[in-house]
Amino acid sequence: MTPLVKKYFLKLSQASDDDKTPDLERVLAGLRREGLDAGSVPVSVIRKISSALRDNNFEVTATVSLSEEPELIDIEPGSSAGRRSTAFGLAVDLGTTNIVCSLIDLDTGSPTGMPVSDTNPQSVIGEDILARIHHCLKTGGLEELRLAAVGCVNAVAERLAASAGISAGDISCACISGNTTMAHFFLGLDPYNICRAPYVPAANRFGSFKAKDVGLNIRPEAPVVVLPNVGSYVGGDVLAGILVSGMADREGISILVDVGTNAEIIVGNRDWLVACAGAAGPALEGGVVSSGMRAAPGAIDRITIGDKHDPSFSVIGDVTPVGMCGSALIDLLSELFRTGLIDGRGKFVPGRTERVVETESGPAYRVADNIFFTERDIENLVRTKAAMYTALTVIISEIGITFNDIESFFVAGTFGEYIAADKAVSIGMLPDIPIEKFRLLGNSSLKGAVMALLDIKAIEQIEKIASMITYRELNASAEFMSLYRAAMFLPHTDASLFPNAYKS
Amino acid sequence: MTPLVKKYFLKLSQASDDDKTPDLERVLAGLRREGLDAGSVPVSVIRKISSALRDNNFEVTATVSLSEEPELIDIEPGSSAGRRSTAFGLAVDLGTTNIVCSLIDLDTGSPTGMPVSDTNPQSVIGEDILARIHHCLKTGGLEELRLAAVGCVNAVAERLAASAGISAGDISCACISGNTTMAHFFLGLDPYNICRAPYVPAANRFGSFKAKDVGLNIRPEAPVVVLPNVGSYVGGDVLAGILVSGMADREGISILVDVGTNAEIIVGNRDWLVACAGAAGPALEGGVVSSGMRAAPGAIDRITIGDKHDPSFSVIGDVTPVGMCGSALIDLLSELFRTGLIDGRGKFVPGRTERVVETESGPAYRVADNIFFTERDIENLVRTKAAMYTALTVIISEIGITFNDIESFFVAGTFGEYIAADKAVSIGMLPDIPIEKFRLLGNSSLKGAVMALLDIKAIEQIEKIASMITYRELNASAEFMSLYRAAMFLPHTDASLFPNAYKS
Repeated sequence: MTPLVKKYFLKLSQASDDDKTPDLERVLAGLRREGLDAGSVPVSVIRKISSALRDNNFEVTATVSLSEEPELIDIEPGSSAGRRSTAFGLAVDLGTTNIVCSLIDLDTGSPTGMPVSDTNPQSVIGEDILARIHHCLKTGGLEELRLAAVGCVNAVAERLAASAGISAGDISCACISGNTTMAHFFLGLDPYNICRAPYVPAANRFGSFKAKDVGLNIRPEAPVVVLPNVGSYVGGDVLAGILVSGMADREGISILVDVGTNAEIIVGNRDWLVACAGAAGPALEGGVVSSGMRAAPGAIDRITIGDKHDPSFSVIGDVTPVGMCGSALIDLLSELFRTGLIDGRGKFVPGRTERVVETESGPAYRVADNIFFTERDIENLVRTKAAMYTALTVIISEIGITFNDIESFFVAGTFGEYIAADKAVSIGMLPDIPIEKFRLLGNSSLKGAVMALLDIKAIEQIEKIASMITYRELNASAEFMSLYRAAMFLPHTDASLFPNAYKS
Repeated sequence: MTPLVKKYFLKLSQASDDDKTPDLERVLAGLRREGLDAGSVPVSVIRKISSALRDNNFEVTATVSLSEEPELIDIEPGSSAGRRSTAFGLAVDLGTTNIVCSLIDLDTGSPTGMPVSDTNPQSVIGEDILARIHHCLKTGGLEELRLAAVGCVNAVAERLAASAGISAGDISCACISGNTTMAHFFLGLDPYNICRAPYVPAANRFGSFKAKDVGLNIRPEAPVVVLPNVGSYVGGDVLAGILVSGMADREGISILVDVGTNAEIIVGNRDWLVACAGAAGPALEGGVVSSGMRAAPGAIDRITIGDKHDPSFSVIGDVTPVGMCGSALIDLLSELFRTGLIDGRGKFVPGRTERVVETESGPAYRVADNIFFTERDIENLVRTKAAMYTALTVIISEIGITFNDIESFFVAGTFGEYIAADKAVSIGMLPDIPIEKFRLLGNSSLKGAVMALLDIKAIEQIEKIASMITYRELNASAEFMSLYRAAMFLPHTDASLFPNAYKS
């Protein structure tokens, strides 16, 4: 494995009358002995070489980017052990709603601690992607969005670095994984044409930049890789998910559903990959459902309804619950239906339990004193699950296969870390296939970014995956709408599609 | 010839439902059709692509650096003619005393006008190189020197651009030619070890940087090549001179003398090159001789003494003379000796003419009302010429040849543009060889920088020259000193060495 950046401890001979090799060339010769042919060196690094050599007896630690050609990106007076000898990388899942970062020790391949996330501050400027793209029409609007995203990553990186006992300036590389529009915002690229016919991004392959050129406050010359995208709708976050799933290496056909703020669906194997996208996510990320929230401390992540219709649940961080994240919403909808508290249309059946109370927003199931699940919430959630199931149905039928042909079904996205696949099947969101075929990938956008930090071949693989993908526009035709209407029932108007939903 | 930067007019097809190629990839495909495989593109350029494409119907002008791998360094809405279609490069002779720049139209290969020069503002901080190196020991001292040099180049570039009807931001590349220490100052590299044993520069090969990274206010992503040096004493300016002379391509042996603030001597041919350096210059650049000045408007550049001991001279810029540049100083010394106004020791012979007057600084020849050439000036100049001749004698004797073996004798340096070789021979500064063997190269440092802008192969050639050079420390031994003392006479203590000096 070749990480994006590596540190080399170099014991060099001292300059003398017999060896007048200049300082830079002396270091480059040392690197050549390590098998590295570093080309041009940034001037900011050449400036540090003379004192680095003489501060510690011509022993230096060279930080080398292996992103493209080997490049010397920093040099320090040497020490062969301890923090200074370790290279750190920052993995970034640049989500529309949340920005999640992980700090990786590139020597061991392990994170220095838990990932740290924060709400994407762009949300204040525009709640959804379209509002933000619109905001770019204003003078300075794009720059405002860029600075919001970059500033948030910098703040999170600083927190991660502090926890690891280093400074953000000690981080030597970063990989950014996000959807097409988020990548554009991060780099300050005009997103105008992403959402207007013929839907052309400014770029699919961004390549590698310097931290200083994109505004990241890590090591100035650190390589920052922004994962590529495939057109307007399949972003680097999805490609990361495909990489993490390994589906593009398999003979059997897999489906991958990446549920973030939008839902992307990928079907394929090592020979072909088809992608489509649909609006599905907001109800699951906390934006639409009244008591919904993102998977963060205080979020109920798992919930069941007991004999007396009382809920029992677990809360992230073991604190007083303040809302429910996507997995709990799916659990609850499933449980309300299983226990007969709601009917197939998602309406509360009157007089079944005292947990269902009348609120300002109509009838609602009381989860806790401050948390209610209303009929309107249910409606939103049913719309989301219907859109998802319809998209899945349409795409596999367009490809000419059935759900029985699927070998593995991957669920990705932050919320995919917590989801109970059987519950998602029971509400008719995911197809009724053998439960062992489901694999929860968790935040595969972040995991893919970590893989890219740890091995430059991962980036090549992502680029190969990108080149394999065919994008299908999901037909918003009458057929799609009639399928969608049929899926607006729990689990489905055609119950024969879900024979196993409630067997247990 | 492959210039450092080239502009390409690209007529691209419009994005459509049938061709959703992203903007960046569309431009890169256009460049591939021109035979250019541009790798990674700077983010600042990707940011401009979308609007550049749509501002003029998908016709763009791409500015491509050919310095290393082809790199897209700018993009503008296209126009196939006029100023916007022309690439400009800045050639810089970064001298210790003067900074001279020329703006080159890279399409025609011609300068847009006369070179523009200015006094190196570092002179205010430290008159000579050693004082400046010493200044770097102060906190912020190096940065002060760097900013002085870069600021001066920026100011001169702006003047050149204004004269050419463009802005400095339209300049797409630059080449900097200077001695080792000046290159270090320009890049902000610690010069401390250049002048202290074992005399090791921070770097010999600097490579190519971005304008924005070295502070040049030309196109931000423009490549800036800093010519390499060979150790502490042979700088890029000398290598440029060797390139311009062509001596490293010839079978016969040549000598090149580069007289700037120091004098460097190169002897060799296509198989070997030996270099040495000596302090020689100041007296010829205006720093030491009381009436001396650099070759600028107001400087007498040529002077003869007539029958009645009156001078006749030409003045640069045809204005009232204010001083004499190096070539005039040599002329005058030669003429004073030829006419018998001074003796072989450089002393005025009393009572020969009324032009020799008594001044505060002792006896002096009155060139004009405000310009006097004193005995002390003569002494300084004789020291310079003696040092030069001694260095030449020592180096060829160490190599084991004689002046008769020399096929061509090149004189480089600003002052070399104006010097009369026969006069330099007559005072015993240059050896008495057939006069047709002398070739005046003028400012070959600047000319070499121009060659590097116009053809990247020139940079390869300079690097090849650099690798061929052996540096010889001129022996400051008793032998050197006795040869030096013998050369402190006009033309020489051993007159047989200059049989042709006054034949005519």
